[in-house]
Amino acid sequence: MDKNLNEYPHRRYNALTGEWVLVSPHRSKRPWQGQVEKHSAEVRPQYDPGCYLCPGNSRLGGEQNPDYKDVYVFTNDFSALLKHSPDFDVVEDDIFKAESEKGICRVICFSPDHSLTVPQMKVEDIRKVVDLWIEEYQTLGSDPEINYVQIFENKGEIMGCSNPHPHGQIWASQKLPVEPSKKQHSQQEYFEKHGSTLLSDYLQKELQKDERVIFENNHFVAVVPFWATWPYEAMIIPKRAMARITDMTNDEKTALAETYKRLTMIYDKVFDVSFPYSAGIHQAPTDGKEHNEWHWHMAFYPPLLRSATVKKFMVGYEMLATPQRDITPESAAQILKNLN
Amino acid sequence: MDKNLNEYPHRRYNALTGEWVLVSPHRSKRPWQGQVEKHSAEVRPQYDPGCYLCPGNSRLGGEQNPDYKDVYVFTNDFSALLKHSPDFDVVEDDIFKAESEKGICRVICFSPDHSLTVPQMKVEDIRKVVDLWIEEYQTLGSDPEINYVQIFENKGEIMGCSNPHPHGQIWASQKLPVEPSKKQHSQQEYFEKHGSTLLSDYLQKELQKDERVIFENNHFVAVVPFWATWPYEAMIIPKRAMARITDMTNDEKTALAETYKRLTMIYDKVFDVSFPYSAGIHQAPTDGKEHNEWHWHMAFYPPLLRSATVKKFMVGYEMLATPQRDITPESAAQILKNLN
Ligand SMILES: O=P(O)(O)O[C@H]1O[C@H](CO)[C@@H](O)[C@H](O)[C@H]1O
Ligand SMILES: O=P(O)(O)O[C@H]1O[C@H](CO)[C@@H](O)[C@H](O)[C@H]1O
Repeated sequence: MDKNLNEYPHRRYNALTGEWVLVSPHRSKRPWQGQVEKHSAEVRPQYDPGCYLCPGNSRLGGEQNPDYKDVYVFTNDFSALLKHSPDFDVVEDDIFKAESEKGICRVICFSPDHSLTVPQMKVEDIRKVVDLWIEEYQTLGSDPEINYVQIFENKGEIMGCSNPHPHGQIWASQKLPVEPSKKQHSQQEYFEKHGSTLLSDYLQKELQKDERVIFENNHFVAVVPFWATWPYEAMIIPKRAMARITDMTNDEKTALAETYKRLTMIYDKVFDVSFPYSAGIHQAPTDGKEHNEWHWHMAFYPPLLRSATVKKFMVGYEMLATPQRDITPESAAQILKNLN
Repeated sequence: MDKNLNEYPHRRYNALTGEWVLVSPHRSKRPWQGQVEKHSAEVRPQYDPGCYLCPGNSRLGGEQNPDYKDVYVFTNDFSALLKHSPDFDVVEDDIFKAESEKGICRVICFSPDHSLTVPQMKVEDIRKVVDLWIEEYQTLGSDPEINYVQIFENKGEIMGCSNPHPHGQIWASQKLPVEPSKKQHSQQEYFEKHGSTLLSDYLQKELQKDERVIFENNHFVAVVPFWATWPYEAMIIPKRAMARITDMTNDEKTALAETYKRLTMIYDKVFDVSFPYSAGIHQAPTDGKEHNEWHWHMAFYPPLLRSATVKKFMVGYEMLATPQRDITPESAAQILKNLN
């Protein structure tokens, strides 16, 4: 690696989004006197009578959960998107522009066991989550009014997760959201120019360089991307170029479950705490087109920076100008790799 | 206003950044069981011997603050940008792209009085902050290696502000940061097409519609933008099209101080708490060009949503897909207007 990147302030280009991140390698020793988070190391029961996601309990919307045994998916009682709302467009003077948005918000319980988190689950049980993601992507995406399916997980109170029961969400929408649309644009441009997916060429280089790879197995690579914004940001990238998770073979599905578990187990060791993050899968839109340019991947955005209680604040300069990081992606990768 | 915007999920276009925000007007009544913030209503002394920003005290870098009487500016002891570092470029295969970044990070103490916040300061004292911003923009910007000057304030622990002493920051850089670059692009496009600045036409419409205006005075309008992302996001826009704060007349400078105070006083009444936010000024680059397309403005991004302790989390869907809000910009504006 160019030694300058390890020493001096610089900007790195995110080839997937087309945006930049400011890296300040010299600044890691900045003292911290700001807000620290509560560290809730509470041990949770396997069943919590007050949890609206536990089997058999009533949800806030009034419905009762079945006595489910592995995974369970339902439509969010307080969905941000609705399936049945009118179509409309507002356009005024190149300035005021709005359009209706429709969709479906789903909640997926990963396990009936309230006490678990992904890194604590068995691979065979995480595999059931993977299978359900695939099924939901297919079913939701087959609706002609649904053109994108965003699968994600918010983990930890610090990430606004309002319930510790292991679960994720899926928001399926008519319009292509902002972030996937940036990634679609870059991948398309790359694919047209090179005839290969951006991420397959990227992956090959990362494996060669071996500076940011956390681990790999037969089917996936876990890597701190060159353009990582969050301190311990990571990506899980399939070695084979696939546009969508429905393209996975049986082996790949199991390998994804393994990779997901292994990465989150490493995360939990960084600060010896259940590591919070938002994670999600970016993949091809469900607009009926082929999308050979897409190489699906799973992104992890964990907020912790220095300890179990000190996070990176994306505020001020980050909100108004450019996201900024202190610790380099290479150092973060090294730390994660050593915990593997 | 199109009544649909008040009723149904939709996306609004941010004419300044070219991005979208998802609005879910029906969803405001969602129950909250997640993280609540500490509400630190501590009364602060006018002088804190442990504060590295108070007059006469020593800073973490070892230097001692002078016994300043109004405003005081110095170079950050832990700057994210450095003025003297080598120039370099890294480019590899359309995928790995990095470039050196240089700059200067400044800290501005708004007042020697440790106990104050902007809404509690006298207009004549805020005016001194405005004057210093102008001076710094000029001095920093006159360096040929500095092409953009980002003035901002992080207020409140929840915003990662590590010291409650009233202060702001200025990060001046060689490269045009991500957000201003989006705004430059949109404003340029608009100006070329219409021959007027985007924000002067926008302002005229907002004053006509009177749905999102919080208040106005002779020189400025405080408005919740049509495309607001944060629950109580607001902008201060000068009525006269000016590319940069150095273009202000004497009256406008005082009016800016008044407007800044008045808006933040309103904010403090929303949840009866010292209202946290990141705020900053977006204006023309200091690259020596004229930039008639630029109409400078000050943006406020406050995180609180439902109470002094419940904030909006920009996580999960927001990080991976599109920022989402529940309360409409129009309702937020109405609430703020009524507190005026
Ligand atoms: O410089 P401060 O106030 O210590 O730090 C704060 O503001 C910076 C600029 O917005 C951010 O990069 C930091 O994450 C934040 O904690
Ligand atoms: O749906 P939840 O988990 O209650 O809510 C959380 O995730 C949503 C989707 O990422 C966000 O919009 C909310 O701000 C956050 O609190």
